[in-house]
Amino acid sequence: MADSRLNIPPFAQSCLQVTGNVWFAAQTHPFVQALADGSLPVENFRFYQMQDARYLEAFTDACSIISARCVQPDDKLWFIDAAKLALVVERQLHTEYGKQLGYDATDIAQLTLTPNNLAYQNHMLVTCHRGALLEAIAVLTPCPWLYTELGQRLQTQLGSPSDDHPYVNWLRTYADDGFVAYTNTLLAYLEAAAQESGEQTRQRAQQAFLTSVRYEWMFWQQAWTMQPWPV
Amino acid sequence: MADSRLNIPPFAQSCLQVTGNVWFAAQTHPFVQALADGSLPVENFRFYQMQDARYLEAFTDACSIISARCVQPDDKLWFIDAAKLALVVERQLHTEYGKQLGYDATDIAQLTLTPNNLAYQNHMLVTCHRGALLEAIAVLTPCPWLYTELGQRLQTQLGSPSDDHPYVNWLRTYADDGFVAYTNTLLAYLEAAAQESGEQTRQRAQQAFLTSVRYEWMFWQQAWTMQPWPV
Amino acid sequence: MADSRLNIPPFAQSCLQVTGNVWFAAQTHPFVQALADGSLPVENFRFYQMQDARYLEAFTDACSIISARCVQPDDKLWFIDAAKLALVVERQLHTEYGKQLGYDATDIAQLTLTPNNLAYQNHMLVTCHRGALLEAIAVLTPCPWLYTELGQRLQTQLGSPSDDHPYVNWLRTYADDGFVAYTNTLLAYLEAAAQESGEQTRQRAQQAFLTSVRYEWMFWQQAWTMQPWPV
Amino acid sequence: MADSRLNIPPFAQSCLQVTGNVWFAAQTHPFVQALADGSLPVENFRFYQMQDARYLEAFTDACSIISARCVQPDDKLWFIDAAKLALVVERQLHTEYGKQLGYDATDIAQLTLTPNNLAYQNHMLVTCHRGALLEAIAVLTPCPWLYTELGQRLQTQLGSPSDDHPYVNWLRTYADDGFVAYTNTLLAYLEAAAQESGEQTRQRAQQAFLTSVRYEWMFWQQAWTMQPWPV
Repeated sequence: MADSRLNIPPFAQSCLQVTGNVWFAAQTHPFVQALADGSLPVENFRFYQMQDARYLEAFTDACSIISARCVQPDDKLWFIDAAKLALVVERQLHTEYGKQLGYDATDIAQLTLTPNNLAYQNHMLVTCHRGALLEAIAVLTPCPWLYTELGQRLQTQLGSPSDDHPYVNWLRTYADDGFVAYTNTLLAYLEAAAQESGEQTRQRAQQAFLTSVRYEWMFWQQAWTMQPWPV
Repeated sequence: MADSRLNIPPFAQSCLQVTGNVWFAAQTHPFVQALADGSLPVENFRFYQMQDARYLEAFTDACSIISARCVQPDDKLWFIDAAKLALVVERQLHTEYGKQLGYDATDIAQLTLTPNNLAYQNHMLVTCHRGALLEAIAVLTPCPWLYTELGQRLQTQLGSPSDDHPYVNWLRTYADDGFVAYTNTLLAYLEAAAQESGEQTRQRAQQAFLTSVRYEWMFWQQAWTMQPWPV
Repeated sequence: MADSRLNIPPFAQSCLQVTGNVWFAAQTHPFVQALADGSLPVENFRFYQMQDARYLEAFTDACSIISARCVQPDDKLWFIDAAKLALVVERQLHTEYGKQLGYDATDIAQLTLTPNNLAYQNHMLVTCHRGALLEAIAVLTPCPWLYTELGQRLQTQLGSPSDDHPYVNWLRTYADDGFVAYTNTLLAYLEAAAQESGEQTRQRAQQAFLTSVRYEWMFWQQAWTMQPWPV
Repeated sequence: MADSRLNIPPFAQSCLQVTGNVWFAAQTHPFVQALADGSLPVENFRFYQMQDARYLEAFTDACSIISARCVQPDDKLWFIDAAKLALVVERQLHTEYGKQLGYDATDIAQLTLTPNNLAYQNHMLVTCHRGALLEAIAVLTPCPWLYTELGQRLQTQLGSPSDDHPYVNWLRTYADDGFVAYTNTLLAYLEAAAQESGEQTRQRAQQAFLTSVRYEWMFWQQAWTMQPWPV
């Protein structure tokens, strides 16, 4: 049975403290506010969805790499399922939006990644390849955690979005209890890895977490500004 | 609809030629013959299944690593599914045997890998980590290909195994059409990667393939001799 | 005997074409022009040197990872030497500047990487970890190639910098013949890897090269603007 | 000033205890005894040297991979130097033997690795790629530690080898004080990584260490028996 509340273990709490007000900034970026009140121009939402589809491919890869580093088969399986979830379920979501918004898989494949998106993806992947396992899990955590909290907060503030809200599907996805359960499991993995780690590794993981939260803000920002490359 | 025949593309053919008589030796190892005619002592089968369960964890990891190296999301997905198949479907098989043969997940986790099993796993994993993509796929291919061909050959030679054959489930698994389709897809990936590779890479991949076939023989051998570590 | 001219093999030429005017933009960034004419504020130079010291650590890592992926021991050795060169020789350069500009190894270690610097480093490292060997070499190439060409061009345009030019040491380093020989060898490795690669891999490598050139421009830019994190 | 005595920190001690009598077995393998008393047939020594040359390439790669995972530049540098030492200094040694024993770099490159040698190399490389840093250092440690201890023990037992001992150069190399200092530094890195690791990681590292010690015995064994592949 899915839990409807986030459980934040001690190490995740410490990560949150390190982020200072960056966490709140990422939660309240103008893009999010416009998404929530329905005023977000559809071009920005389309831009966001297409970039996000590619981001999720990197999230999939990060989960696959972590799976291959886990020792216990149950843990391998959880991260494989997470890899597949990012790829399949979210692509399904994107396919549906794709029909509405006018893009398909080929458009996604040919998309030029924005600087902020590419930077976020590479931050995750490098850390998963060569960081300690704690750092690897830490770079992944902000995305689902922040979205879960956001989904819940928006529902509390605004109530369940009405069927004619332009972004109703998006808002419902991240307020879903299944998504809370998923995030809670990931947070538990983070805690378990922290238990196996010394102080230096924990500090690096907190910094890696902070960087991911910064990139969450910058991900909204790239969609908000339809960020081009400077050259 | 699953294809019931193996399709062997040119590069896979060239790999087969490089193996010389090692491929045939792996197909006709005394362990296999005893498995087919039902004379294999149950202790050897139990030993084999337990070691195989751990081998499949490494096969899972190899698929996960390859998935994270693929560029196209469809390819990522196929290798994630292959990773999960190795872990879930095969563990299901092992769980069933486990009840019959008296072992559970904890026994598997605490098992000492035999020298041949460990060497095979590490050969796959190193190649997936740092070899060219062609080499990575080449080290994976012998296992499903050899088992598919074996399953088909035994069925042709011996007919469908009767329900009271001591190893009927095992024999049926690898003669299954779904397994043929899976192997055909893997062989097609091997071919596609070969098309993208120069002659030096192709030669290294053929050698890596040969080494995996040798390890297939050595895997039967470790179960046949219940191989201990020499020290 | 070191060659004093860059030799640009065909694949490197094709990479250059893909960059369009980004290559020229990176060569003529205001930071570079101010560095060359001596008008660059010392604070910007200091900022640049400190960030560059950390960039070189990542360059070292990229060379180490490539070394471990090379097959021939002579190639392994060349990339190990390149790894060490980036770390030792360049740190020596930085140490000297450090005394002048007031920073030491601890300051470097505690430095917050700018967004552009971190993004560039991670682009290199991810590609070295999971890209084809051609892509791995392609992400590394722009840095020494661009600096070599820049060093030579500035010397041609401005003549040898006088001893009282504020950035004389920096300018002389990259105009040095030994540096040309190094870049020529790297370009030859790029060509050899291209010979072993199919069209899709070559296209990905060209794009990876282009991204590195963009990051070269963005590296000047982060030092020019003393780039903060947006949150 | 090089230290002439090995300093064994607590975690290394614990690794030694886990090896039980395997450590002693590796120190007293018939190959070693015959090497020490000069009765070893030159064909076996030649076989050993050629396989060892290839082993050292893998040791180099392991050091390079670890270097790219270290955080501090001083640590990166030490492992790069270790990578280069394995490749250059040891190849120099092998080149000298090569002239005496009749093989050159091409023969080394074309050599078929024995099963035991390949297995040892892959054990090191897989662990360096995906294990915790402690495990990565642990798989590397037995080789230099065991050789250092062996070099010292033989010198104590047999005195300095006379100039006409057939394997005098080999014996002197590993009794050298510089080699002791190198091993002491590696053991200190092992200890530092252990301090940053939890109990599960430490246990896995001890097992990885044990496996390397087993492979040390098996490395002597492959040279003693001129091990062929079974198929």
